[in-house]
Amino acid sequence: MEPEAALLTDLYQLTMTEAYLAEGQWDEAVFSLFVRRLPSRRNYLVAAGLEDVLDTLEHLRFRAEDLEWLASLGRFSDRLLGWLERFRFSGDVDAMPEGTPVFAQEPLLEVRAPLPEAQLVETYLLNVMHLQTLAASKASRVVEAARGRPVMEFGLRRIHGADSGLKVARAAYLAGVDSTSNVLAGKRYGIPLAGTMAHSYVQSHDDELEAFRAFTRVYPDATLLVDTYDTLRGVQDAIRLAREQGEDFRVRALRLDSGDLLALSLAARELLDEAGLERVRLVASGGLDEDEVARLLARGAPLDGFGVGTAMGVSADAPSLDMAYKLVEYAGRPRVKLSAGKVLLPGSKQVYRQEEDGIARRDLLVRRGDVARGRPLLRPVMRAGQRLPGALPSLDDARVYARREVARLPLEVRALEPARPPYSVVVGDGLARARAHEAEVWATGP
Amino acid sequence: MEPEAALLTDLYQLTMTEAYLAEGQWDEAVFSLFVRRLPSRRNYLVAAGLEDVLDTLEHLRFRAEDLEWLASLGRFSDRLLGWLERFRFSGDVDAMPEGTPVFAQEPLLEVRAPLPEAQLVETYLLNVMHLQTLAASKASRVVEAARGRPVMEFGLRRIHGADSGLKVARAAYLAGVDSTSNVLAGKRYGIPLAGTMAHSYVQSHDDELEAFRAFTRVYPDATLLVDTYDTLRGVQDAIRLAREQGEDFRVRALRLDSGDLLALSLAARELLDEAGLERVRLVASGGLDEDEVARLLARGAPLDGFGVGTAMGVSADAPSLDMAYKLVEYAGRPRVKLSAGKVLLPGSKQVYRQEEDGIARRDLLVRRGDVARGRPLLRPVMRAGQRLPGALPSLDDARVYARREVARLPLEVRALEPARPPYSVVVGDGLARARAHEAEVWATGP
Repeated sequence: MEPEAALLTDLYQLTMTEAYLAEGQWDEAVFSLFVRRLPSRRNYLVAAGLEDVLDTLEHLRFRAEDLEWLASLGRFSDRLLGWLERFRFSGDVDAMPEGTPVFAQEPLLEVRAPLPEAQLVETYLLNVMHLQTLAASKASRVVEAARGRPVMEFGLRRIHGADSGLKVARAAYLAGVDSTSNVLAGKRYGIPLAGTMAHSYVQSHDDELEAFRAFTRVYPDATLLVDTYDTLRGVQDAIRLAREQGEDFRVRALRLDSGDLLALSLAARELLDEAGLERVRLVASGGLDEDEVARLLARGAPLDGFGVGTAMGVSADAPSLDMAYKLVEYAGRPRVKLSAGKVLLPGSKQVYRQEEDGIARRDLLVRRGDVARGRPLLRPVMRAGQRLPGALPSLDDARVYARREVARLPLEVRALEPARPPYSVVVGDGLARARAHEAEVWATGP
Repeated sequence: MEPEAALLTDLYQLTMTEAYLAEGQWDEAVFSLFVRRLPSRRNYLVAAGLEDVLDTLEHLRFRAEDLEWLASLGRFSDRLLGWLERFRFSGDVDAMPEGTPVFAQEPLLEVRAPLPEAQLVETYLLNVMHLQTLAASKASRVVEAARGRPVMEFGLRRIHGADSGLKVARAAYLAGVDSTSNVLAGKRYGIPLAGTMAHSYVQSHDDELEAFRAFTRVYPDATLLVDTYDTLRGVQDAIRLAREQGEDFRVRALRLDSGDLLALSLAARELLDEAGLERVRLVASGGLDEDEVARLLARGAPLDGFGVGTAMGVSADAPSLDMAYKLVEYAGRPRVKLSAGKVLLPGSKQVYRQEEDGIARRDLLVRRGDVARGRPLLRPVMRAGQRLPGALPSLDDARVYARREVARLPLEVRALEPARPPYSVVVGDGLARARAHEAEVWATGP
C-alpha cells in the first residue's frame, strides 16, 4: 500500500462511518462482493485481486497527516477522527482463490465485521478486485485463443496508469499469459520478461539491415521487428543478416506488427523456410485481441506467439464489470435491496461447483451453512483481521490452478462466442425463499 | 513519482538503450507524441498529463536497488547500468497546454534529446499522457451533455487501479467536472469533494425514514439516496422527514440511482413541489454516461446534477486512444515509417489554430519553423531538463482555459454525435513534401 492509500476512498465512506458512530451502529455486518451481470462477451470471469485485498485489510492505517487534513475539512468529528486513528480491520474474509472461474451473482468474497469497518473498506476492495478480475478474465480469453502458443503482455503504455500497469501484468500472468514487457512487474511478481525492439530503433539507422546488424551485435538472440518500411523487405533483410552471420546467426524470431498478418506471416514463413531458417519463429503484434488471434490461427497463420497490448490491458470490449459490494446481513438479519434492475440476494452465501466426468456442469448458490453437493468455492482466508496460514498460494501455483479450473469448464463456456445457454448458476431453495420473504417484509412493512 | 517508478517501463527501452550505447548513437532525436486516429465517438480530444510528464522527466532516477536488480538479470552491461545510474533527462519539451482541444496527427508534445534519453522515456510519457488525455476527453463530453449542471465524479471503485483513480479525477476536473468523491484526489489536487450515502446505510436501518433521520442528525444538509426499496416511497420518506424537522430541514438534494430516471425525476419533482420543497434538488446517478445525461435533459428531466462514475472513469465507449510516441527526426534528418495503415509525418512540427469570429475553423499542421497564420499551440515548457517558469498554470487556471477552448470549437465538433465533416486539420505544403520525399528515398533507396 502507498503511504496515502487510506485516503483513496469515496467521501461517503467517511460520512457514513461518522453517522454509524453517532448512532452506535456497531453490530456485525456481512458484505458480499459480486458481479451482477457478465458482459455480453464474457462466458465466465476469473477471480483475481485477493492478495492485494488481504494486504490492504492488514495494513490499512490513517496516518497523522491524513487525519490532520481530514480535520481541516471541518466535516468530521473528533469521534470519527479518533476512530480512524485507531482503525485496524478486525473482521473475517471468505473468498474464492485467485484464478477461480466465477459467474454472475456469485460472491468472489464476503467480509464479516462490525458495520463501520466493513463499510469503510468498500472502495479499496472494489477498486482492487474489479481491476484484477477484469484483467484476468480478458487475458484468459486471449490465452484460450492462442491455443498453447506463448502470449506476451505488452500493454503498459496504454493501460490506465502505473498501478494498473502492474496489476494487469500480474492478472494476465495469473490467467496464463507467459511474459510481460513491464520491467517492474517482472521485479515485483517474478513474471518472465519479454521484449523486442521499436520502430524508432530501425528508423534511427540509415538502413534497416544495419539496424539489425547493430542490435544483434548486442543481443544475438533478439526478436527483430520487420515492418518499419515493408514487412517482406524486412524479412529479406533478416535473411541477409543470416547469410552474413552464418553459424553465428541466432536470431530467435521476427515480429510482424502491421498489415495483413495472415498473408504476411504465410509469405514470411515461406521466405524463411526457403532460406533454411525454419527455426526462426514468427510472432505477431499490433492491435491484437483474442478475436484476431483466433481468426489468424483458424486460417492457418504460421505464427508462434503473440504480443498483446492495449486491447487486453484495458479489456477493450468490456472495460468494466458490474461489480458491487453489498450489505447482505446486519445484526443477524438478512438484508435486501429492491432497486429496479439490481437483484440482491440476502444473507451470507456459499457456491458449490458441481462436476461430472471432471467438467463443471453447474454452480449452486446457497445460504452459508446450507448443505449441498459439489465443491465449495469460498474458503476462509482471514479471521479477526489476520490472514490465515496458507490463505494465498504463490502466483505460479495460482496460475496453474487458474489454467486447470478453466480447463474444467465446458467447451462452449471456454469459447470466445457467447455460450447458449450460459453456464448454469442455480439459486438454492433456501436462498430463493429468503429473498421472497425479505421482499415481502418490505412490501407489506411499516 | 513512486520510488520504483524508473522500472515501470518496457524491457525494450533498456535493451535498445544498451544497443545505442554500444553503437554510440548519441545524436539528437525528436520524438512526437500524438494520436493517429480519433475514436469514432470523439470529435476532439482534450490534452492532459503534462504536469506529470514534466515531473517524471525532472525526477526520473534509477536507484541503487533498481540497478542491482537489473544487474541480476544478466542481460545488461556495466556500461548500460552506469549510464542508467547517472541518468538525468537533459532534453527539451514543447507541448500543448493541458486543456487544449487536440485532433488526430497533431503532436501533444515533442521531446528533443540525445537518442538514448528520448527513447528511454517513451513508456512513462505514453502511460501518463494516454490515460489523462483519454479521461479528460471523455469527461469533456459529459460536461457538455450536462449543459451547465454540476457533474460529480464517482468512479473510483471501478476505475482501473489506484493511480488511475487519482489521475481520472484530476483530468475530469480539468475538463470541467465540478467535484469528486475521491478523498485523496481532493487532498492532492484541491478538487472539491462530493458524496452522499450508500444503499447499505439505508439497509442497515430497519426503516428508510429512520435512516434518513439518523443521517441528517449528523449531516443536516445531506443528499439522501431514495431508491433502496422504491424511489417514490423514498421521496415520500424524505417529505415526511421535512414535515418532522420543519424549519430545521436542510436536506440539499435527493439522489435517484436506478429505474426510469426520466419518469422518476418528473414524479419526484412533483411530489417535492407539492410538499413545498421546491428548493430540494434532484441528482441522478447509476450507470450514467454523456448519452444518457443528454437524453434525460432533452426530454425535460428536472435534474439539477449528475453523479457519473464508471462510464466516464474508464472511458467506456473508447477505453484507449491510438496514441504513439514516434521518432520523427534523428541527427538532423526527418525520419519516416511506412508500416501499413500507420501514417507518420516526418520532422518536428507546430500546430496553428485558425479562428474566425472567435470560433476555431481549422488547424494547420506544419514543419516547426514554417510560418503560418493562426495561434501556435505547442509552447516551450522544458529546456535542458528544467521546466520553464510559467510552464504550468494552476489546475484551476487550466480548467478555465480548457472550458474556454472547448467553447471556441464549432458546435458540431462539441456535439456528442460524430461531426460530418470532422474538424479540419490541414497538413502544410512543406510537411506534405517532406513526407513524399522521405517515402521516395526509402522506396528507391539502398
